[in-house]
Amino acid sequence: MPRANKSAKAAGKDESVLRAIKGEKAVFKPAAKTALDKSPAKPIPFKPGSAVADDAPIISLNLEPAKLSPAMAAYFKKCQDKLGFVPNVLVAYAFDMTKLEAFVAMYNDLMLGESGLSKLEREMIAVTVSSQNRCYYCLTAHGAAVRQYSGNPLLGEHLVMNYRVARLNKRQRTMLDFAVKLTTSPWDVEEGDRERLRRVGFTDRDIWDISAVAGFFNMSNRVASATDMRPNTVYHGQAR
Amino acid sequence: MPRANKSAKAAGKDESVLRAIKGEKAVFKPAAKTALDKSPAKPIPFKPGSAVADDAPIISLNLEPAKLSPAMAAYFKKCQDKLGFVPNVLVAYAFDMTKLEAFVAMYNDLMLGESGLSKLEREMIAVTVSSQNRCYYCLTAHGAAVRQYSGNPLLGEHLVMNYRVARLNKRQRTMLDFAVKLTTSPWDVEEGDRERLRRVGFTDRDIWDISAVAGFFNMSNRVASATDMRPNTVYHGQAR
Amino acid sequence: MPRANKSAKAAGKDESVLRAIKGEKAVFKPAAKTALDKSPAKPIPFKPGSAVADDAPIISLNLEPAKLSPAMAAYFKKCQDKLGFVPNVLVAYAFDMTKLEAFVAMYNDLMLGESGLSKLEREMIAVTVSSQNRCYYCLTAHGAAVRQYSGNPLLGEHLVMNYRVARLNKRQRTMLDFAVKLTTSPWDVEEGDRERLRRVGFTDRDIWDISAVAGFFNMSNRVASATDMRPNTVYHGQAR
Amino acid sequence: MPRANKSAKAAGKDESVLRAIKGEKAVFKPAAKTALDKSPAKPIPFKPGSAVADDAPIISLNLEPAKLSPAMAAYFKKCQDKLGFVPNVLVAYAFDMTKLEAFVAMYNDLMLGESGLSKLEREMIAVTVSSQNRCYYCLTAHGAAVRQYSGNPLLGEHLVMNYRVARLNKRQRTMLDFAVKLTTSPWDVEEGDRERLRRVGFTDRDIWDISAVAGFFNMSNRVASATDMRPNTVYHGQAR
Amino acid sequence: MPRANKSAKAAGKDESVLRAIKGEKAVFKPAAKTALDKSPAKPIPFKPGSAVADDAPIISLNLEPAKLSPAMAAYFKKCQDKLGFVPNVLVAYAFDMTKLEAFVAMYNDLMLGESGLSKLEREMIAVTVSSQNRCYYCLTAHGAAVRQYSGNPLLGEHLVMNYRVARLNKRQRTMLDFAVKLTTSPWDVEEGDRERLRRVGFTDRDIWDISAVAGFFNMSNRVASATDMRPNTVYHGQAR
Amino acid sequence: MPRANKSAKAAGKDESVLRAIKGEKAVFKPAAKTALDKSPAKPIPFKPGSAVADDAPIISLNLEPAKLSPAMAAYFKKCQDKLGFVPNVLVAYAFDMTKLEAFVAMYNDLMLGESGLSKLEREMIAVTVSSQNRCYYCLTAHGAAVRQYSGNPLLGEHLVMNYRVARLNKRQRTMLDFAVKLTTSPWDVEEGDRERLRRVGFTDRDIWDISAVAGFFNMSNRVASATDMRPNTVYHGQAR
Repeated sequence: MPRANKSAKAAGKDESVLRAIKGEKAVFKPAAKTALDKSPAKPIPFKPGSAVADDAPIISLNLEPAKLSPAMAAYFKKCQDKLGFVPNVLVAYAFDMTKLEAFVAMYNDLMLGESGLSKLEREMIAVTVSSQNRCYYCLTAHGAAVRQYSGNPLLGEHLVMNYRVARLNKRQRTMLDFAVKLTTSPWDVEEGDRERLRRVGFTDRDIWDISAVAGFFNMSNRVASATDMRPNTVYHGQAR
Repeated sequence: MPRANKSAKAAGKDESVLRAIKGEKAVFKPAAKTALDKSPAKPIPFKPGSAVADDAPIISLNLEPAKLSPAMAAYFKKCQDKLGFVPNVLVAYAFDMTKLEAFVAMYNDLMLGESGLSKLEREMIAVTVSSQNRCYYCLTAHGAAVRQYSGNPLLGEHLVMNYRVARLNKRQRTMLDFAVKLTTSPWDVEEGDRERLRRVGFTDRDIWDISAVAGFFNMSNRVASATDMRPNTVYHGQAR
Repeated sequence: MPRANKSAKAAGKDESVLRAIKGEKAVFKPAAKTALDKSPAKPIPFKPGSAVADDAPIISLNLEPAKLSPAMAAYFKKCQDKLGFVPNVLVAYAFDMTKLEAFVAMYNDLMLGESGLSKLEREMIAVTVSSQNRCYYCLTAHGAAVRQYSGNPLLGEHLVMNYRVARLNKRQRTMLDFAVKLTTSPWDVEEGDRERLRRVGFTDRDIWDISAVAGFFNMSNRVASATDMRPNTVYHGQAR
Repeated sequence: MPRANKSAKAAGKDESVLRAIKGEKAVFKPAAKTALDKSPAKPIPFKPGSAVADDAPIISLNLEPAKLSPAMAAYFKKCQDKLGFVPNVLVAYAFDMTKLEAFVAMYNDLMLGESGLSKLEREMIAVTVSSQNRCYYCLTAHGAAVRQYSGNPLLGEHLVMNYRVARLNKRQRTMLDFAVKLTTSPWDVEEGDRERLRRVGFTDRDIWDISAVAGFFNMSNRVASATDMRPNTVYHGQAR
Repeated sequence: MPRANKSAKAAGKDESVLRAIKGEKAVFKPAAKTALDKSPAKPIPFKPGSAVADDAPIISLNLEPAKLSPAMAAYFKKCQDKLGFVPNVLVAYAFDMTKLEAFVAMYNDLMLGESGLSKLEREMIAVTVSSQNRCYYCLTAHGAAVRQYSGNPLLGEHLVMNYRVARLNKRQRTMLDFAVKLTTSPWDVEEGDRERLRRVGFTDRDIWDISAVAGFFNMSNRVASATDMRPNTVYHGQAR
Repeated sequence: MPRANKSAKAAGKDESVLRAIKGEKAVFKPAAKTALDKSPAKPIPFKPGSAVADDAPIISLNLEPAKLSPAMAAYFKKCQDKLGFVPNVLVAYAFDMTKLEAFVAMYNDLMLGESGLSKLEREMIAVTVSSQNRCYYCLTAHGAAVRQYSGNPLLGEHLVMNYRVARLNKRQRTMLDFAVKLTTSPWDVEEGDRERLRRVGFTDRDIWDISAVAGFFNMSNRVASATDMRPNTVYHGQAR
């Protein structure tokens, strides 16, 4: 039987997240079974970003939230201020500050730090890898990011569904082909594959970054699938 | 080099489709290369349903559109009136009236005719099968249908990404498990699989319908992938 | 436990089919368990085309046969006259005239209508696709067709077992390679694959036809597997 | 470019095989290109067992036939007398007497020696394994053997196409399920699989024999595929 | 053409690593082609831990080593003191202090921090996951760790080759089955899989840890394969 | 429940094997459960080659050892004298002299007879094939052989883990690529694959030998996996 990591409520007025941000231990109440669970075949009025939809458990493990460290409280607050919500993956990791901080450090360096890859390109890798692994959490959160960064909603849909239908230039297609091969048959990646990346202009440092981002989502996809992690509902409507 | 089945323009003012509906032979002009094709990495202002996006070729085969038969002209007109557009798959088949009529007859019977399966359930099978086959056209068009019929945008996303994350009742989960097995390893389907369907309440006639719908999308997914069929852009924004 | 679509008896004196052809509702009696089911390891005298072997249920779904429409009664009669039997797939669909007519219309256009592909080539695609999906019904019925159309029994066997061993010219090998890729990884078919077909002389219209036939058998294989459809025994001995 | 192990001609008057049987070194002439190779799409009059069809090279390696040892000459003669022909696999191995004798010794023990499995059951394993590996040679030669031993032509076809459609008793189905698992994912076979065999009555010695026969055809299938080994044409018409 | 991240020499007298530990920028000379590369088929005298073998490039990307941060210099020194060498993965990451520190933080928490899983169990997951992905670096380094922690060299070999042959208790077998499923088909992991872990005594926190370790090696395996990372030769001889 | 082919004890003083060599029927006592089976997670003092470790059953089938024929008694004695032990695979086959002799004849010809492939190359094929099939017995026994013949312990590890990381010359890489393709998709091997071997200098006779060795281990891997065959412990420490 699934147990619930009681979820944060919707963005803006989410008391438990805010309490967490202030460094208090969150007191979650058991999530009410949502209407969705009961009768999926019947139309259900759905308000994006509403409390109802986000009331579902974030993960299917029963982990007691920890007190946020000052650094993490500040980080959650920054998320709340800039995004209007704290991404559920952070709430999921917040049962243990060491794990949360290590995750945040690696994530921020890979996805937001200096790189020869644009942020959009890194998000494109994230979505393409997550599509191979059919990871609901990452496809939703990073699909939204691709739509936003590119200003092209179709690109987000293409990468979620089948990156081969996207109208990509040669550089990006080669980059995603590499990420997909590294995801599906890593044992088969050899010098020829690196050479293909070099031939379309990637430096060895870029190759590291492509590999590290593809690797990171092969990790995150599995943590999300293993725990049945659910994305914030707000992503679904973003940048359509 | 791809050649273009010159596409219909956007819904509402699409002259070529309208002309086709009137039974004239459409005169398509070569589609201008879209901005999307040139620089996918840069943000491109995107207006859903706008002429720019739909100006892409519908399929990558160069097939001369035929004169619509009276029945098909009426059907296209009905699509235009009720949906506001003619689904691209119909335009793609419109190079040959026999093929178009056979497709429409089979499609309408399977998806809209009498059945123990609700229309939503049939669309759920369509999307789940198309997700296994990673078919961009069908995921887009039928994903929108699931969102609309169910009134639940999340359900559409779940089935596109990984049907196992959807909150389904036992009947629907068993139905989709059968459709997926029939898609990925049809040789392995045996009496035990049919028995599982019967145990959750499906009649033998329902089992036929599940099989026929799953089979139909295994056909359509392949015709779409083989021809690089592109869905009408309008689907992307529907029922989010 | 399997339930039986009580089968038509052997060609020539099959009352129930004839009755159906006359537009009466067939009254099938439960099929007697055949000797085959009891002790397959012991030699069983086998008379091809005999009532015993065809007495097995055609499909493992219990569907009440419908009254044949005039068009379908005429079609069944034509089958009986020209082939000496009504193919079991038609009997299987005959529980619903709309479905039977849609199937027949699509089948006849694809396999017997105008095309740049010869009828043999279309049958070759049918068998090669069915071999990938290990579909007993289609391999048997269309394997016989390849043997007949080609006058080359070995070609039929090659395509059933492994199309790569057949002595094919470049055009036909490229055609079957495309059909196999479209069957096993449709998401991976791209412009390069279509170009390969064009380079061996196929027109865009031919490419549509190859795709449509391959798609059709990906549907039929699954309907047959889902229902445990059994071919008429008479096929086994044809054109050996 | 394929080179030819020049083949033995048709049964009954095959001089080169007979010469080999007498212990002389066969002098093969380069096989004439057969009509089959040139235009497979056109009907070719085909006489089973005729010289034309068997004139194709037996394997696509150019190996000089060796002088048959007395034991092997006697064995070939026995084949000729009892079967009316020498199976091509033996001709293929006849470039080296040590290899031929080792193959014959292992084959005869496994397929014809004492065992708790009937000869038919061993042939059923042979065909089912060969179907997984899509081995043309073994499917043809051992498919004929199943048809003959069982007196049931359909059983041979079932096992060639998809053993799951055969009407098998529990013992034989369990035996073939084991052989298929051992063929496709040997790393995954564990005590539970052996227990399943014991539960339907197989002794530990029987389990060895099932494994050894399945293993043997996993070897032979690969030698045949690696060398493009072609079966004697006569098999195709046997016991239909 | 591969370019070399010039490697650290053998343990104990490795100047470049030591220099790095002191915070100087290492000056690597291009690795001489080793004898191994030239004629692998001839016996080559091999001294484990010798400079020759470790002289190969650590990765096939040309990345300039950075100056070690004080924390990392201390960490490298600690490795040198306790292990007698700095693991190559750390040297590989040492071109960028942010990346190195994030990797070390996550690694040390997961593999050495508090957990309901023993350190051996975490290493067992590492090796089993790496075996699925056929990652040479991780199989070598963590195979040695399993041999050491368990005091059982066979267990290390079993997990490298096929974890199903290891004599595991039910808890550990269930744990590794979960890690393998999460590695090979993460989309298929559901509540039933978590329940199986709970039934053999794992807490929800343990399930997180199993998932996080399995996820981490799915990342590391891919970074290692993408860069052709080579383990320190010293691992091969440890704890045999 | 597993039953035990009671195993031979450790090399050097193994009474039962010696008795077998003398032609007596071995009297094996039921193997005591080893410490390994009880608590794998705790360090267990392990002495390579010690009686404890080899006391495990060689296979999980209960087969009565037969009296060794004079030829096989001599062969076992030769093994004992030259290797210091009788390989467990021979003990496993020793329940039936016909089978043992056929296996030995084929093995010795393939692995030790005249060939254009060096003995090392044949062992390299053995290990690479066994790695694809994850066969514990063969990886252990033939991994040791590669280490010994090559004088390069790393080569043995590379081939066990992922042959693509080995530093191979073009001839050997092409040879192993062929063996892997023949193992994983034998149906897909065609003239082009044989041509690739010819282009790096292999004769048609060499191609036969590569195929025969790869085929042989596809058989042996399956017999070993089907019976849970365990290698002599002594292999683990050899030539490290």
